Amino acid sequence: MAKATIVWTKIDEAPALATYSLLPIMRAFTKDADVEIELRDISLAGRILAQFPDILPEDKRVPDELSYLGELVWKPEANIMKLPNISASVPQLKEAIKELQEQGYPLPDYPENPQTEEEEKIKERYDRCVGSVVNPVLRQGNSDRRLAKVVKEYAKKHPHRLKEVSPHSKSHVAHMKDGDFYQHEQSVIIEKDTKIKYVFEDKDGNQTVLKEVEVGKGDVVDGTFMNRKKLREYFAEVIDRAKEDDILFSLHVKATMMRVSDPVIFGDAIRVYYSKLFERHSDIIEKLGWKPEFGMQELENRLEQLSEEEREAVKKTIEEIYKERPRMYMVDSDKGITNLHMPNDVIIDASVPAVIKNGLQGWGPDGETDDTVLCIPDRSYATMYKEIVEDIKARGQFDPTKIGTVQNVGLMAMKAEEYGSHDKTFFPPADGKMKVVDEDGNVLIEHCVNEGDIWRSCITKDIAIRDWVKLAVNRAKDSGFPIVFWLDEYRAHDRNLIEKVKEELPKYDLSDVDWYIKAPQDAMKFTLARFRNGEDTISVTGNVLRDYLTDLFPIIEVGTSARSLSIVPLIAGGGVFETGAGGSAPKHVEQFLKESHLRWDSLGEFLAFVESLKLAYKQLKTLHQKDNPRILVIADALSKAVGKYLENDKTPKRKVGQLDTRGSHFYLALYWAEALASQTEDKELAEKFEKVFAELKENEEKILSEIAATEGKPADIGGWYHPDDEKAEKAMRPSETFNKIIDSLLES
Amino acid sequence: MAKATIVWTKIDEAPALATYSLLPIMRAFTKDADVEIELRDISLAGRILAQFPDILPEDKRVPDELSYLGELVWKPEANIMKLPNISASVPQLKEAIKELQEQGYPLPDYPENPQTEEEEKIKERYDRCVGSVVNPVLRQGNSDRRLAKVVKEYAKKHPHRLKEVSPHSKSHVAHMKDGDFYQHEQSVIIEKDTKIKYVFEDKDGNQTVLKEVEVGKGDVVDGTFMNRKKLREYFAEVIDRAKEDDILFSLHVKATMMRVSDPVIFGDAIRVYYSKLFERHSDIIEKLGWKPEFGMQELENRLEQLSEEEREAVKKTIEEIYKERPRMYMVDSDKGITNLHMPNDVIIDASVPAVIKNGLQGWGPDGETDDTVLCIPDRSYATMYKEIVEDIKARGQFDPTKIGTVQNVGLMAMKAEEYGSHDKTFFPPADGKMKVVDEDGNVLIEHCVNEGDIWRSCITKDIAIRDWVKLAVNRAKDSGFPIVFWLDEYRAHDRNLIEKVKEELPKYDLSDVDWYIKAPQDAMKFTLARFRNGEDTISVTGNVLRDYLTDLFPIIEVGTSARSLSIVPLIAGGGVFETGAGGSAPKHVEQFLKESHLRWDSLGEFLAFVESLKLAYKQLKTLHQKDNPRILVIADALSKAVGKYLENDKTPKRKVGQLDTRGSHFYLALYWAEALASQTEDKELAEKFEKVFAELKENEEKILSEIAATEGKPADIGGWYHPDDEKAEKAMRPSETFNKIIDSLLES
Repeated sequence: MAKATIVWTKIDEAPALATYSLLPIMRAFTKDADVEIELRDISLAGRILAQFPDILPEDKRVPDELSYLGELVWKPEANIMKLPNISASVPQLKEAIKELQEQGYPLPDYPENPQTEEEEKIKERYDRCVGSVVNPVLRQGNSDRRLAKVVKEYAKKHPHRLKEVSPHSKSHVAHMKDGDFYQHEQSVIIEKDTKIKYVFEDKDGNQTVLKEVEVGKGDVVDGTFMNRKKLREYFAEVIDRAKEDDILFSLHVKATMMRVSDPVIFGDAIRVYYSKLFERHSDIIEKLGWKPEFGMQELENRLEQLSEEEREAVKKTIEEIYKERPRMYMVDSDKGITNLHMPNDVIIDASVPAVIKNGLQGWGPDGETDDTVLCIPDRSYATMYKEIVEDIKARGQFDPTKIGTVQNVGLMAMKAEEYGSHDKTFFPPADGKMKVVDEDGNVLIEHCVNEGDIWRSCITKDIAIRDWVKLAVNRAKDSGFPIVFWLDEYRAHDRNLIEKVKEELPKYDLSDVDWYIKAPQDAMKFTLARFRNGEDTISVTGNVLRDYLTDLFPIIEVGTSARSLSIVPLIAGGGVFETGAGGSAPKHVEQFLKESHLRWDSLGEFLAFVESLKLAYKQLKTLHQKDNPRILVIADALSKAVGKYLENDKTPKRKVGQLDTRGSHFYLALYWAEALASQTEDKELAEKFEKVFAELKENEEKILSEIAATEGKPADIGGWYHPDDEKAEKAMRPSETFNKIIDSLLES
Repeated sequence: MAKATIVWTKIDEAPALATYSLLPIMRAFTKDADVEIELRDISLAGRILAQFPDILPEDKRVPDELSYLGELVWKPEANIMKLPNISASVPQLKEAIKELQEQGYPLPDYPENPQTEEEEKIKERYDRCVGSVVNPVLRQGNSDRRLAKVVKEYAKKHPHRLKEVSPHSKSHVAHMKDGDFYQHEQSVIIEKDTKIKYVFEDKDGNQTVLKEVEVGKGDVVDGTFMNRKKLREYFAEVIDRAKEDDILFSLHVKATMMRVSDPVIFGDAIRVYYSKLFERHSDIIEKLGWKPEFGMQELENRLEQLSEEEREAVKKTIEEIYKERPRMYMVDSDKGITNLHMPNDVIIDASVPAVIKNGLQGWGPDGETDDTVLCIPDRSYATMYKEIVEDIKARGQFDPTKIGTVQNVGLMAMKAEEYGSHDKTFFPPADGKMKVVDEDGNVLIEHCVNEGDIWRSCITKDIAIRDWVKLAVNRAKDSGFPIVFWLDEYRAHDRNLIEKVKEELPKYDLSDVDWYIKAPQDAMKFTLARFRNGEDTISVTGNVLRDYLTDLFPIIEVGTSARSLSIVPLIAGGGVFETGAGGSAPKHVEQFLKESHLRWDSLGEFLAFVESLKLAYKQLKTLHQKDNPRILVIADALSKAVGKYLENDKTPKRKVGQLDTRGSHFYLALYWAEALASQTEDKELAEKFEKVFAELKENEEKILSEIAATEGKPADIGGWYHPDDEKAEKAMRPSETFNKIIDSLLES
């Protein structure tokens, strides 16, 4: 009998613990609906073990589930619940290896400095487990992000606080007038499969090939650069203006994501703001090997290496600078961490919404809030932020009880656009030319650049773009909302995308699709007009705006982006349902180990599972010609249950003795059963769950007390990275009464 | 006994005719209020006669009233009703001279090509009467423009039609990304009185002094330039985009006002749009001596000089171009007049509002309306137009019954800013540098320019700026509306103005003043948010934005800017009340001469006179310590009368037999008398006008029929430029009954 298979990923830390409690519930409630839930281990420990089938004894071997999923995502039946996992650092990797060794897995040590060829090979295997390795495998599609209806409705009834904004606010976005990436962009659509070369040509005509890349017909290849001289002039001007306005100075970039270019931009802000430091102490700076790209924190750290006299001289200069320059926007004013302390500290997609939430203000060095200039150098992104900031100054703060919702369809697949540009970002070693040349010697892109300018190329794959348009159309049809392509016809890359969008759109029935193409600033204006009017809109954007907008709007609407649905509708037709924007929450595990209280909120999993079930219904129908509306009934009931869960505030609480994850799962089950019992579409199911609901309701106190009884004592789960399943399950399912009800469903 | 003197200007054509009828009414109604109305002749004929006191016999000599007014405007008692006059072309001048000669004035002929020294001198005198010579003399103040309350209220009740806008409109404003005046601007505040030199320096260091100008301490001197290469690249891009979008191409500049720079920009649009013409026919173009700055109309005219073969070749190329290029926005599609036909045809301040009124559409070559790209190259002005265009796309067309009002305080005095830059606009003869150097050799401004770039300097006088700030504060206090300075802190000139504004503002009590400084785009956004919300705002702007906004908002609010109040509060304390934005309406005179029906609407004079009376009240009080509230009672009654005049639609109609100017004046008097009779503040006046009202009301039919009796026959007024006062008065005051009532008031 054909069933739809949902893969539930076994991952790490808090969400992994929550899974022990939650997965049985999910299985129990979907048992009669032709849905099967498979657990697939892509935890760090699981991935490590999967690297060594040759070394491990047979009973300890594990299959390489990530590879399996990597194949699955290219099949139409893929339906994956992707919970947050660890993107391991090397220290984490080593800890995990040690834990596994102690559990009796005969793994080799991690050879940090491999001496032999064998060690090299071992290191290579281990290195496959380091860093962000899961997302690149699973994200074989574009991005569909939105707030589930229940979450949005809850926020409208229980609005979070957005600080009022004075119309006299001096806060504003300042971008470059010229010389930025926006201005210089060139873009081509590749006419036939070819290999392109990135070439630097010096003034004497000497050429250096910096990189070669294969590109396919229809791919969009861009090149552009940031003129560093103009960038610094811009910083100087903004700093002067901020001083004159007596407002805070803040820079908003994304060094974590644009990890090659943005640290350099960040460094230039330091070069200009702290110019006196470089004028006076260039020798010391050189001696310390410090570069402004490292941030001021690293300079402070390295100052320890200096003689007291030198150190004091530098510190005195810095103090002088703070007096002469505009006050700095602080990341943490209590700890004295400025906006320019660490390049990774100010992350534009989080920091601009934070300023908006805070009434268009930041925190100054005195710990007080104040207006601030938001430096966003490149006009590709700055203008849309400028639009929303000025909109707020003109029309006042948003009212979460009245605003509509803004969903996003993002061009993310196959390392689309800027976010795939790291290995194609170059700093010309001298004044000269940067060129992109194809196999036939055609110069596709050419720029005159100066030494040190930031030159960057992005590639956007044809298939990714087509799929993105399809997704946008599908979302428009599903939702009935207008879709707005945020593309600027006066920007070269966007122009090529517009061409492709206009090529793709007519392939669909657009009779019920209200679509627009608007430059980001205009798109923002249009979207905000609707937003304030309580109307809903889908932003269809490139990869960077995807990243920015999927924080911006959820934060304004519901106070956080962590409650968003994050779906990757796969190019091959399946779907990945990502949960937990906040990571795997090691602190929650620490608390659980200490006092058996877990405060992981599975809301993201609940919501994602609703969508996963909807996909399962579709898959059954299209792949197996089986129309099973029961799946939708179950999904719908879950959605209602989540509404009640929020309404009755059954999210886990912080402190021991309060409701925790396990108790919150009980309530989810209770409300889910109630919703199934009270629905009328599927009578058989209603009858079945009427009983379940009655049993759960009747035993509410008992179940909660059985859970509560475990609290306040340490928990033993037999491992951090690789817990003992039996122990962990016991710890996470402490209520015999609840287990009996769930298990009887599973066995029925 | 001290009286306030209002100068009523004797001018030309239709408003001059209307004055014969209106002035007695104005005098009659203000007789008992310490107000005297003097008629001063600044008509073209009057100005001509005033040039020749030595030649004319004593009984034919006239005083030089314009010179008198030129002195008066610098005195606090100035109170001038400035009606529209002729800015004479040479043909008009010659006609006027001929007429005067025929009337017996022994004037010399106009020596177009003077041969003797004497002729030179005569020409010189006559030339003082040519062109726009009145405004520069009288406009010794900044600008206060707004809609009178009655006009705004009338429009809210009787809204004019603004065409709906589709959210899918492809119309948009396209401006340059870089290389424009906005980007290159440098600005200095002069530190001490000095003489500045404008210098061009070629690549070899050879300097040419282009001009010398005296400047004073506190004056703001700017220099900036338009990079012509970038300008043409911009046109090429916009033209391509328009073709791709399949929308109309339109350029919006103000060659009439920016008469040195904007024709060149206009010419570059032609160079790019019609590039094929220049590629193929450069020899012919040279032979014809045609330059693109002249416009396509002039090329068409000159084509007549060619052989048929050559002419056809050029025409064929033009036809080809029209097929290949985006369709052209038409000034007059019936007559085939394109946007690029004549540089003076597309006047941005009129053309953009026309597009807005027309649902963001223009007329195409086929006579159908369509979306259009609005090319406004320079970001100094384009961004605010972009803002309103996108606002309309996002929020829909404005609703005249709901919107607020936007008034303007404009920095106009002493040839402020761009509008005084014509004699300081230069086209570098080669690549090199443009410099502004002071007496001490300090280089105040320096630009690297390319041959042919448009380099321009503006001077804004310190005293004009201070007065402007004062006017803004006064208007804020008078109205209770917020004032928004449209100044961009990231633009050099504006930055200096902001400095001066911030210096001036604290000199006033600002406790009841809600003031803002915002960049034009942001100011527009802020203003529009209020505007749509029915709230009122005062824009405080430079000279160009004054010009643009005082058309834009009145046209949106009431359908025309001709019904605006245009006040020049003089720096010395007096005031000039300008009326009749539409000129002196020669066609109306033609009709009157033919059939004794004048359709000049004196609404502007009525409204201006209300303001003039209010000033008279203030002047009496401050200059003569005489508090005469009766003046205000009369002014207020006039304002009410105007309301009724509009409400009952007593404006002159187009056709003979319908109500004309004379009848409309009767109604004004009727309503004015009624309002005075029904007011309770001044009983004596009420009693007096109760009788007047009764008489007028009683004789309504009789008076109208006395006027109507004259219609349909030619009128004899004894001259066009210099009518016979007796004849003209007779023609314009044909109702014995009405005259008797008015005259008895005058004699009482």
